[in-house]
Amino acid sequence: MTNDFLGKMAAETLESASSRRLHARILEISEIGRTENQGSRRMGYSEEELAAKDRVADWMEGIGMSVRTDGAGNVFGRYRGQDDSKVFMAGSHIDSVPDGGHFDGAAGVITALEIATLWYEAGYQPKYSYEVVIFSDEEGSRFGSGLTGSRAFMGMLTEEEINKYRDPEGQTIDDVLGNIGSDREQFLSAEGLDYNIEIYAEVHIEQAKQLEQKELPVGIVSGIAGATRTNITFRGEAGHAGSTPMTERRDALVKASEFISTLPEVAKGISREAVATVGKMDVKPGGVNVIPGEVNLVVDARDIDTDNQSKLIEAVAEHAEDTVRDSSITAEVDLTTRVMPIPIDPEVISRMEASFKRQDLLPVHLPSGAGHDAMSIGTEFPITMLFVRSLKGISHNPEEFTHIEDLSRSVQVLKDFFENY
Amino acid sequence: MTNDFLGKMAAETLESASSRRLHARILEISEIGRTENQGSRRMGYSEEELAAKDRVADWMEGIGMSVRTDGAGNVFGRYRGQDDSKVFMAGSHIDSVPDGGHFDGAAGVITALEIATLWYEAGYQPKYSYEVVIFSDEEGSRFGSGLTGSRAFMGMLTEEEINKYRDPEGQTIDDVLGNIGSDREQFLSAEGLDYNIEIYAEVHIEQAKQLEQKELPVGIVSGIAGATRTNITFRGEAGHAGSTPMTERRDALVKASEFISTLPEVAKGISREAVATVGKMDVKPGGVNVIPGEVNLVVDARDIDTDNQSKLIEAVAEHAEDTVRDSSITAEVDLTTRVMPIPIDPEVISRMEASFKRQDLLPVHLPSGAGHDAMSIGTEFPITMLFVRSLKGISHNPEEFTHIEDLSRSVQVLKDFFENY
Repeated sequence: MTNDFLGKMAAETLESASSRRLHARILEISEIGRTENQGSRRMGYSEEELAAKDRVADWMEGIGMSVRTDGAGNVFGRYRGQDDSKVFMAGSHIDSVPDGGHFDGAAGVITALEIATLWYEAGYQPKYSYEVVIFSDEEGSRFGSGLTGSRAFMGMLTEEEINKYRDPEGQTIDDVLGNIGSDREQFLSAEGLDYNIEIYAEVHIEQAKQLEQKELPVGIVSGIAGATRTNITFRGEAGHAGSTPMTERRDALVKASEFISTLPEVAKGISREAVATVGKMDVKPGGVNVIPGEVNLVVDARDIDTDNQSKLIEAVAEHAEDTVRDSSITAEVDLTTRVMPIPIDPEVISRMEASFKRQDLLPVHLPSGAGHDAMSIGTEFPITMLFVRSLKGISHNPEEFTHIEDLSRSVQVLKDFFENY
Repeated sequence: MTNDFLGKMAAETLESASSRRLHARILEISEIGRTENQGSRRMGYSEEELAAKDRVADWMEGIGMSVRTDGAGNVFGRYRGQDDSKVFMAGSHIDSVPDGGHFDGAAGVITALEIATLWYEAGYQPKYSYEVVIFSDEEGSRFGSGLTGSRAFMGMLTEEEINKYRDPEGQTIDDVLGNIGSDREQFLSAEGLDYNIEIYAEVHIEQAKQLEQKELPVGIVSGIAGATRTNITFRGEAGHAGSTPMTERRDALVKASEFISTLPEVAKGISREAVATVGKMDVKPGGVNVIPGEVNLVVDARDIDTDNQSKLIEAVAEHAEDTVRDSSITAEVDLTTRVMPIPIDPEVISRMEASFKRQDLLPVHLPSGAGHDAMSIGTEFPITMLFVRSLKGISHNPEEFTHIEDLSRSVQVLKDFFENY
């Protein structure tokens, strides 16, 4: 039984006191909301998420940090710097999907806290005050939202959006805020906009396999992709699969398939970071012996660069039109969602590269295809993100695993980054 | 309101007493099980199917035919010929899908009876005795079967198959047979094998648009395709649509799409009659932001020629293997169903062509992609089939329509065929 979370944790090599502390803290948080699959269940604003925040807050107070909670339940631990007029902020979230792993979110919080702990032990005072933050409900599993705490912090939530929140038990955002002693006015107060954040840093597990393939423990996030969703409906004509000759068909699926099979080339033509995926499609009417008259599909397309994202959106639409040109099939294209990419300042990246070199790490760049709390902060303030190697890229699953020594490497490099800022 | 069945029937031009009788009889049968959409609901072995059979039996008796019902509820009306040791058989079915049209099946029964009626009126005696047959439950909507009566007649049903029959109300084949005064022994007695059928003829609506496009009322069926079903599972690896670069993907849907988009060329490469269709597919896990790890699809492939059908089955499997060759995707191919095609004797076709010419009709050939009762009889005896032009090719729908004059043309040509046999 070394293939499960506890087995893997027991088999970890731990080379320093700091690694041992990271190990112990990941284990301790993992006990809160542990599922029968040895996974994690700490939904946004649940008792389990609150308990995990309290545990981290205890550790913060243990090293003299001043701890406070804002109207969205986000927890901030402040470690005084030489100049208290600005802050270095670092953190992530501690909620999870319903049967998730023990690293997505928790890794960012525990490593951010470890930096302060090492400074505390060394009697070191950073240039600016250092705040470790735990954002609430990043996964959004409860209300089908996402980045809830960090968006509230940055004033990105509207009354209109939060009025729609209903959890599976019918609870509203007001019910949930009442439980944590807040209300919607405090929730929407957007404190982040009054902050003087010099830079926000987030360590996160990679949730992909690039670092594993490159055999590197940590990588520098080069930008956070903005997800776009384009609904495309291909329309032809349904007909009997037996009695309609091949030459007389208006098969919507044949055309949709032509579109899908060549979509990867469209993405590759935009940039190295561009991705385009069809993950969901409906074939109608869907009978084994009926020629499909209609196919609906959704293209999820992303890029970390705003211009490239625009080009990608345009290229996907043109690709649909090109596919059906001079045919008897039509394509209806509808861009339904566009989240803007969050770029990372090349100056910040080059300073992070210097830290990697000082820490004897190869500074590899990785785009972030998924969304993170850093996206919210990045709408107003400079950000930096580090990815830590994920075993087989598995995430949102009890099998999710990241070696503690890899987390330890991210602590060293991010600590170096702040110390040499 | 001339766009519905009754409106269209009221607007029909009727050029002869025979056309007026066909018109009146189609209308009269259409009243039995008429739905609120002006469609037809006469499920196999229902009261409505029985009532329609009784109505036709009355018409049979009116021209001196001897009428009997076999253990499967198939109704036979015999018109004595010069030689009573062999029979010309003609007919079809009178059941319908739950909200079908008024021509699929009924057209074949009413036209077959019309030939006998014209002979009766003319005092003509055909070479061999002439039997008009109404096969039970061709559509198979009740038990999810199909060609039930004609297969029972030809000894093609097994105890194993009929034991599985359950209608939506839980009735078994025994319940249903009890209602018509039969039992499973009589049902399985396979009377057709003791028959001396010289040739079986079936007139059926085309259910496609070839005759409409060629502006011809009637066509000669060149063979009945055998349907084959091949299940194909493409397997890759699911992954995050944002964080997995295009070059690192094992997207099962991209490969499945390559297969589907080029499948028409595979069918066209076999024969003019070959068809291959993907009408149903499952994309797993099916999340908008998840790279598909698995795609299951069914290829419905048909040809009217046995050798070509074999080649087509082989070509579909090879096409799947070719598509995934040198890729990180696998394809599992499983032929689940193969119904053998029913050829039509070239000698019979050339005699039918002669009848077309004598009746001033252009003898066009059409493959039958769908199954018909003629398939069952064709396993042992010579068959011939005529297709009659279908408005817009619509079928299994209240909108299904065939002009009465086109039915009348089929009567003339099939009557000529028997008279010149």
